[in-house]
Amino acid sequence: MVRYAAKVDLNKDAAEQPVLHNRWHPDVPFCGKIKDGETVKIECVDWTGGQIQNNDSADDVKNVDLTKIHYLTGPFEIEGAEPGDVLLVEIADVQPLEEQPWGFTGVFDKGNGGGFLDELYPKAAKAIWDFEGIFCSSRHIPGVKFAGLIHPGILGCAPSAEVLAEWNRREGELITAMDGCGRIVAQPPNPQNVTAGSATADIKEKVAREGARTIPGRPEHGGNCDIKNLSRGSKVYLPVHVKGAGFSVGDLHFSQGDGEISFCGAIEMPGVITIKFSLLKSSTDPNSLQIKSPIYRPGPVEPQFGPGRYIYFEGFSVDEHGKQHYLDATVAYRQTCLRVIEYLRRYGYSDYQIYLLLSCAPVQGHLAGVVDIPNACTTLGLPMDIFDFDISPEKPAVKRDMGTCAFTSDH
Amino acid sequence: MVRYAAKVDLNKDAAEQPVLHNRWHPDVPFCGKIKDGETVKIECVDWTGGQIQNNDSADDVKNVDLTKIHYLTGPFEIEGAEPGDVLLVEIADVQPLEEQPWGFTGVFDKGNGGGFLDELYPKAAKAIWDFEGIFCSSRHIPGVKFAGLIHPGILGCAPSAEVLAEWNRREGELITAMDGCGRIVAQPPNPQNVTAGSATADIKEKVAREGARTIPGRPEHGGNCDIKNLSRGSKVYLPVHVKGAGFSVGDLHFSQGDGEISFCGAIEMPGVITIKFSLLKSSTDPNSLQIKSPIYRPGPVEPQFGPGRYIYFEGFSVDEHGKQHYLDATVAYRQTCLRVIEYLRRYGYSDYQIYLLLSCAPVQGHLAGVVDIPNACTTLGLPMDIFDFDISPEKPAVKRDMGTCAFTSDH
Amino acid sequence: MVRYAAKVDLNKDAAEQPVLHNRWHPDVPFCGKIKDGETVKIECVDWTGGQIQNNDSADDVKNVDLTKIHYLTGPFEIEGAEPGDVLLVEIADVQPLEEQPWGFTGVFDKGNGGGFLDELYPKAAKAIWDFEGIFCSSRHIPGVKFAGLIHPGILGCAPSAEVLAEWNRREGELITAMDGCGRIVAQPPNPQNVTAGSATADIKEKVAREGARTIPGRPEHGGNCDIKNLSRGSKVYLPVHVKGAGFSVGDLHFSQGDGEISFCGAIEMPGVITIKFSLLKSSTDPNSLQIKSPIYRPGPVEPQFGPGRYIYFEGFSVDEHGKQHYLDATVAYRQTCLRVIEYLRRYGYSDYQIYLLLSCAPVQGHLAGVVDIPNACTTLGLPMDIFDFDISPEKPAVKRDMGTCAFTSDH
Amino acid sequence: MVRYAAKVDLNKDAAEQPVLHNRWHPDVPFCGKIKDGETVKIECVDWTGGQIQNNDSADDVKNVDLTKIHYLTGPFEIEGAEPGDVLLVEIADVQPLEEQPWGFTGVFDKGNGGGFLDELYPKAAKAIWDFEGIFCSSRHIPGVKFAGLIHPGILGCAPSAEVLAEWNRREGELITAMDGCGRIVAQPPNPQNVTAGSATADIKEKVAREGARTIPGRPEHGGNCDIKNLSRGSKVYLPVHVKGAGFSVGDLHFSQGDGEISFCGAIEMPGVITIKFSLLKSSTDPNSLQIKSPIYRPGPVEPQFGPGRYIYFEGFSVDEHGKQHYLDATVAYRQTCLRVIEYLRRYGYSDYQIYLLLSCAPVQGHLAGVVDIPNACTTLGLPMDIFDFDISPEKPAVKRDMGTCAFTSDH
Repeated sequence: MVRYAAKVDLNKDAAEQPVLHNRWHPDVPFCGKIKDGETVKIECVDWTGGQIQNNDSADDVKNVDLTKIHYLTGPFEIEGAEPGDVLLVEIADVQPLEEQPWGFTGVFDKGNGGGFLDELYPKAAKAIWDFEGIFCSSRHIPGVKFAGLIHPGILGCAPSAEVLAEWNRREGELITAMDGCGRIVAQPPNPQNVTAGSATADIKEKVAREGARTIPGRPEHGGNCDIKNLSRGSKVYLPVHVKGAGFSVGDLHFSQGDGEISFCGAIEMPGVITIKFSLLKSSTDPNSLQIKSPIYRPGPVEPQFGPGRYIYFEGFSVDEHGKQHYLDATVAYRQTCLRVIEYLRRYGYSDYQIYLLLSCAPVQGHLAGVVDIPNACTTLGLPMDIFDFDISPEKPAVKRDMGTCAFTSDH
Repeated sequence: MVRYAAKVDLNKDAAEQPVLHNRWHPDVPFCGKIKDGETVKIECVDWTGGQIQNNDSADDVKNVDLTKIHYLTGPFEIEGAEPGDVLLVEIADVQPLEEQPWGFTGVFDKGNGGGFLDELYPKAAKAIWDFEGIFCSSRHIPGVKFAGLIHPGILGCAPSAEVLAEWNRREGELITAMDGCGRIVAQPPNPQNVTAGSATADIKEKVAREGARTIPGRPEHGGNCDIKNLSRGSKVYLPVHVKGAGFSVGDLHFSQGDGEISFCGAIEMPGVITIKFSLLKSSTDPNSLQIKSPIYRPGPVEPQFGPGRYIYFEGFSVDEHGKQHYLDATVAYRQTCLRVIEYLRRYGYSDYQIYLLLSCAPVQGHLAGVVDIPNACTTLGLPMDIFDFDISPEKPAVKRDMGTCAFTSDH
Repeated sequence: MVRYAAKVDLNKDAAEQPVLHNRWHPDVPFCGKIKDGETVKIECVDWTGGQIQNNDSADDVKNVDLTKIHYLTGPFEIEGAEPGDVLLVEIADVQPLEEQPWGFTGVFDKGNGGGFLDELYPKAAKAIWDFEGIFCSSRHIPGVKFAGLIHPGILGCAPSAEVLAEWNRREGELITAMDGCGRIVAQPPNPQNVTAGSATADIKEKVAREGARTIPGRPEHGGNCDIKNLSRGSKVYLPVHVKGAGFSVGDLHFSQGDGEISFCGAIEMPGVITIKFSLLKSSTDPNSLQIKSPIYRPGPVEPQFGPGRYIYFEGFSVDEHGKQHYLDATVAYRQTCLRVIEYLRRYGYSDYQIYLLLSCAPVQGHLAGVVDIPNACTTLGLPMDIFDFDISPEKPAVKRDMGTCAFTSDH
Repeated sequence: MVRYAAKVDLNKDAAEQPVLHNRWHPDVPFCGKIKDGETVKIECVDWTGGQIQNNDSADDVKNVDLTKIHYLTGPFEIEGAEPGDVLLVEIADVQPLEEQPWGFTGVFDKGNGGGFLDELYPKAAKAIWDFEGIFCSSRHIPGVKFAGLIHPGILGCAPSAEVLAEWNRREGELITAMDGCGRIVAQPPNPQNVTAGSATADIKEKVAREGARTIPGRPEHGGNCDIKNLSRGSKVYLPVHVKGAGFSVGDLHFSQGDGEISFCGAIEMPGVITIKFSLLKSSTDPNSLQIKSPIYRPGPVEPQFGPGRYIYFEGFSVDEHGKQHYLDATVAYRQTCLRVIEYLRRYGYSDYQIYLLLSCAPVQGHLAGVVDIPNACTTLGLPMDIFDFDISPEKPAVKRDMGTCAFTSDH
């Protein structure tokens, strides 16, 4: 029987649980030990540590405290791991916790977190999703139901002191360089609400001062990569930077679309992940496996719809004000998303409902062409079979009463 | 029997063939008429009009004349098409021409066209691909063979005068804004080597003066979108801007990877495309189909490898100099490509061989996360089954003699 | 939160649990009530009611008591169901029980149950499979690991008295007609070890006397159809024969191959199934849905390997003695299985190990041609990716030490 | 450029073309030579040699001369092939001939060929299919259109004299044993209308006397296996029985369903197949590849619909007269087909139209359970996306005017 390497308690403050931490730092103490070759279960709280409720108001989303996130379970010592090794992490399963068979998707307020389309959709919004086996559906977005591509948003090994210093240097330089641009462009270390597992006060203070925020994924270790396909059966190859690896995982998603566009865009949930750990030891062979960033192989059980069951939308790097950008795939993907919103509006959905849906449904976001100056072209594939009505372009669109997603009380 | 709406002659100068043109302009005369509901075959030259030879030198790639490209077949009048309609284009088949069972992939010289990785790989290079049925292989990149995801790089309807003016305005503004940046960021109208089908001298002169270059895809009509999945069986929905639609097609690809990163990155070829045309008439119903950019549904016969038969590489918006960029998916995808190059190098391939391969093999480029400030994360899925040896991360990499791709004579 | 409509106790005799029964009869009392539109969880014991142990001896398989099987959970009253309706059963999930993360596959002794290849492989054998998340592996068949295509072997609605009488008539006629053929060809009602849930003594006696055995699937209601693809996400449409439907389910399989050839061929386990029930009411419309046998639509999360990752074996209706049979697909499939055994033997597996593996791994058994007199042709697709070594036909086969499956103590 | 190893002339009698033959015999002279490692194109006539016309009468089907079929192209000498080798045949492409962009599906008259359901549907019927690129559609079966899973119905190497003798022995024994059963159960050698390529009169006489009919597939070499998935990109491994292999191919199908149930059930056509030939030499290594029957790996471009886009029908070995058969998968599959006919009838199709459609559309026929005495269970998966209307079980069926398939003039 697979043992639990860590359990969480949903009725207890996340900040009080010694298996959780919310900053990346080499000095966060190990919360447990795992053998090379061992398979264990690891429980995780949701990324906000329980700040969001199963109700019909987005007040909690609007007022979410972002200094607290993400709560990760770990770090775990992997026996025998040394810097330079590759840690092979095979995700044998991910499941919601039996006591919380629901999750949430949020659009963050432009003033508190924001998101990919916050220029157009600045208000907080929320959808609650109910789970029934492999499926989810939402009272806030009627007419859709789909099988989750369940996965962890965050997994990775602890940074070394050098890696951490590099992160703080380069993100600091960006903050400085873009000062005054009117947006928060990166989050520097922030002592507020730091959780560092079972750290002593001294260590905790150090983590608070230096620890990297968990929001961005980073090339050296992956972290918050938010790759929807790291689902059941995936094998992830992670660079090891410290002795014992210091593996952490969290931010479980019942489902997510490519881009996770609304920021809190996946279907966020607490849950349990079953992982097999194996070490690929570093070698002096110049042909040996050396990876600067994680790589992975997806598992065999991804929901599959058949290629012809997607409608793909094209977007180009010309923004909604008619301004031409130079090979900017980010701008192109934003346009692609807007094209989907325009399309689905015809069925009675509000823009916010679609924005939420695109964030969490298993949509395929592709970089189609990135060299045809000056336009990058991206595409977004929307699976038709998540809808309980026919959304074929040839079929007439009938506007339905689609209710509303959750908004704030002052909406 | 399906009729040919246009034929080309590979032994004749592309500029002399009245069914070809190489600028977008509403006044290029129709080269033929197609009925609503009709299926026709349309022959196309390769995008350079035959400038590249089946040999082992990249001199032709280095010196390619970019004022000549792309040669498109059309424009065709679609009977009954009016501005505001949607033209449904069903790609029933794409085939190479029997007399040219080969194609080419090129890395363009940084000084003449360049490409996605030209900072690192500035030299011209070339690979010739031989076709055998659905498969292709190259003497310049041994050890790989794959089924082509055959498709047109370019298809679209003619711009109206207003749309054309908008293109010239916004791209002109970009050119002005980025003047002095050290790169060509967009190509304004250029009278040199204009081909305008059967246009009179007056019209041709107008097209030469105003006609939009074919290099970028553009949101209003698609054009050079370079979407690898517009393959056999796809349905593409194109906005109509002029009476008769003015549909053109060209730039056929035997295969392409997401991003088409080396610019001349697909396996370029002349060929014949079989298309069924249908009109979706515009409607005053506010719920009717209105598309600002093309949409499409892929066909059912895409090569499929199973999700677990891809190795996915992750890349983030931190460039190779350690500079942090803000949510820049283009930078992230460049890093993702570099990770693949590092990986495949271990098997004996040169960087240029891999750069060529990534451009044309059916790799999957995904926008994974675009909201986790400051890092965008993109992924690239490399199908393992295109190699005739095992590239699993766990397996030791054996360096082989992989020969060389074609370089220039002064290399 | 999804409620449990029935729970079982693995530490208690199956025959003592009122939610279980092991005969099909309209008079077995309902063990619970489920609403039209409701989703519930239903626990099931394994098909033998716990007769098989997690050890390295096949004595328990050899001596299994077949009068006890199958133990099914139910019958459930579906509110509003009437004869003539169709009961839509959507399988939202199937999971092993947390307390028993293992299952078994058995080859039955020719003298007690037998199986598809018992002329050649008459001895009892067993493999124990350990579950880790979606995957299973066996100490008795090293070198393989795969994701389960988890499903119920049996589900269906209760027969009416008329349907039951018809079953007993036609199977009785077969028994009479084939008397003396040297095989048990069907199992008539057998009072020994009958379990009928909470039935009174009178009812139980009637069920014992008349109740149909659960071994065969039957066209009128499905029953033990052993269709491997009735997995997560499937929708099954079942004919209703009695008021309240009398739905039962059991015989859960972690995985099974097409044919389930060794009879106890799936990976048998206790577990819990989550089902949504909906009624399609019968109609007088002559175009309405009338089904004589169940139909189903598979779910979207089947393990997928890509078509080229299967090796397919062909078999024809010429038996191993060189005798030609007339369009006999059963004989053809037996030959097909023998071809696989010959193939895999080269890697060091024993015939019994392969026989067990073909029974439970997700192999694809197809009826290829059934009209080319006198030969039926069937094929069996063996997924290559369940092996941790390369079984390509072109690659040299290396014989390994594959240990042994479990045999009986007198083996 | 791939060379043509054989061409056919559709305007010439098949019997007059020296690259064709219609019996299996080791003495049919080679019609050409192919190198180990070479790729060639081979043209084929349709299996009847042009007996069926593109019209609206099934008279030609009713009166087809079955002594003439099948016309195969070959046999080819594969340089270096010896008995005991395995010939690896990689199907790089299959295409219809440009001059005949149509094919036919026939239900044979019960008195002349018959088919799987001839007890119920004894009359001749026909559907003509028009090809447009990868798609086909039929004026005789409106409302359907699909991508062909194009393949050869027949391919194999010549029998040795010993293998041929064995075929004649065992099929002769069946004919004797079933004499008087009221059906033709196998076709012995028949000199009428024998074609033996360029054979001399003596040889031709010998072939006429001894040559095996081409109708059944046979385990030793495959032959008329009618496996729908031997399509583009497949690799087929064929046992070699004579020096030079004597490879023949023919009976090309634009598409076929599992079972090819109406006998002339595929979409039959002349065409051209591109094949790469490689030899796997026999070895004395006891672990080396030894195959008693062909094996194959499918290609990567099969049409794919997603598992949930099939409706699967179940059938059991209880026939339409209520008779119970013992584990008879052939009877079960016949019942499965009848269940589909009943289902599709609701949309306005005639039984003969559906019978034709099930024969040629890419339906999946599976052996689900073959051990649950006394019932075999088979399933048939009907792809929903070949219909241009929604055939979901939940949706009301609307009867349409579906016209008629072709029948005989005395119908």
